[in-house]
Amino acid sequence: MQRWKLTLEYDGRPFVGWQRQDNGPSVQQALEEAIYRFTQETVTVSCAGRTDAGVHALAMVASVDLAREATADKVQAALNFHLRPHPVAVLRVEPVAPDFHARFSCLGRAYLYRILNRRAPAALEAGRVWHVQGGLDAAAMHEAAQRLVGQHDFSSFRASLCQAKSPVKTLSDLSVARVGEEVRIVARARSFLHHQVRNMVGTLKLVGEGRWTADNVSRALAARNRSAAGPTAPAAGLYFTEAWY
Amino acid sequence: MQRWKLTLEYDGRPFVGWQRQDNGPSVQQALEEAIYRFTQETVTVSCAGRTDAGVHALAMVASVDLAREATADKVQAALNFHLRPHPVAVLRVEPVAPDFHARFSCLGRAYLYRILNRRAPAALEAGRVWHVQGGLDAAAMHEAAQRLVGQHDFSSFRASLCQAKSPVKTLSDLSVARVGEEVRIVARARSFLHHQVRNMVGTLKLVGEGRWTADNVSRALAARNRSAAGPTAPAAGLYFTEAWY
Repeated sequence: MQRWKLTLEYDGRPFVGWQRQDNGPSVQQALEEAIYRFTQETVTVSCAGRTDAGVHALAMVASVDLAREATADKVQAALNFHLRPHPVAVLRVEPVAPDFHARFSCLGRAYLYRILNRRAPAALEAGRVWHVQGGLDAAAMHEAAQRLVGQHDFSSFRASLCQAKSPVKTLSDLSVARVGEEVRIVARARSFLHHQVRNMVGTLKLVGEGRWTADNVSRALAARNRSAAGPTAPAAGLYFTEAWY
Repeated sequence: MQRWKLTLEYDGRPFVGWQRQDNGPSVQQALEEAIYRFTQETVTVSCAGRTDAGVHALAMVASVDLAREATADKVQAALNFHLRPHPVAVLRVEPVAPDFHARFSCLGRAYLYRILNRRAPAALEAGRVWHVQGGLDAAAMHEAAQRLVGQHDFSSFRASLCQAKSPVKTLSDLSVARVGEEVRIVARARSFLHHQVRNMVGTLKLVGEGRWTADNVSRALAARNRSAAGPTAPAAGLYFTEAWY
């Protein structure tokens, strides 16, 4: 039995999310079915971040045990073959020690959120960005974002169905920068609450529009009440970009 | 009557190409139908480059005459509204003189071709790049590409169904560069033969793989025979990026 670390890219659009659900195709199901077609083993794949429906991944990390012996190159080629036509690609395959676990060994996670900030809607990037027509002040968003960095009770940015034991998380980085027509937000933490990144982005958008100040963001955080913060940004703009161990 | 210059972004995947055809939806049809819903005028839209099925545009230029009086902002907003759900966006709308013609006034065109050069297939970029697994030498491709720059008889790179009167074209720029996992080819000319860019890319790929030298490219050009050059690269990687006037 060999434990493997898989690094995955996927387009979240056709999926109900990472996790297996009865109401539609999931990334986990696509991957586990590809593994079955390769090894005839029925496995459960763990991952660093169980993304929601429509959320994408540039480098999701997953782990799985396989009894079938094969080289890393063979595992990668076979899984990419059997994953077709799903928009999921295995970027890297590495053998790891039996105590490695994609979720529980993970020391930190990073997300990218892309806002397409222009008058015209997204054509080529439809479903992969949040289209915001009105001009956003990325510098003001970045300044306000710093009010959220550090260890806080993030109840105001937590989805009602969040299963985390504690609302206290340590946000190590929340950066906002304009890149051409896009406003890009990068968030890093050991772990996040459910919808935390999308709720922070929806709140920072209010700052970018000039409707909120950095002080409003601080007050929303202090309220420890979801209704005190901004709306949840759409899934389409969110990308899981990195997990470190 | 006002003539308008439209700058368009579109995802070529759902379309049979720019031009109206009986066998499926075209960008031209989507745009003309959106115009009809806006002004109840039945118009014919001209464009700078009639892209093939699956070819994308970052900034296609089109022109059309409208009797309905409206500001440029109103025309843009109305067309973007009526174009939904097609993946076509009107990026800019400008009033132009009656003698402006998107196709016949065009002084030059530019295309980008994107090759995803990695072992894993495209997931997020599926349908928008050409996936080439084996390593490509972009520097060798760029050097060989310079053999095609200038005025030549491009019969070896011309589709059999090309309707151009002459196979002689002046290629002003053909540049190849690696950008991370991608090899990007930029081509500029006053005009191109049908499939010329895709046929040049398919030929340069042979050089990138080390199967052809720059001298092979020169010989293919001199042969003035389509069978002497490399295969046609897939439509998915091609983007119309610029038209100048």
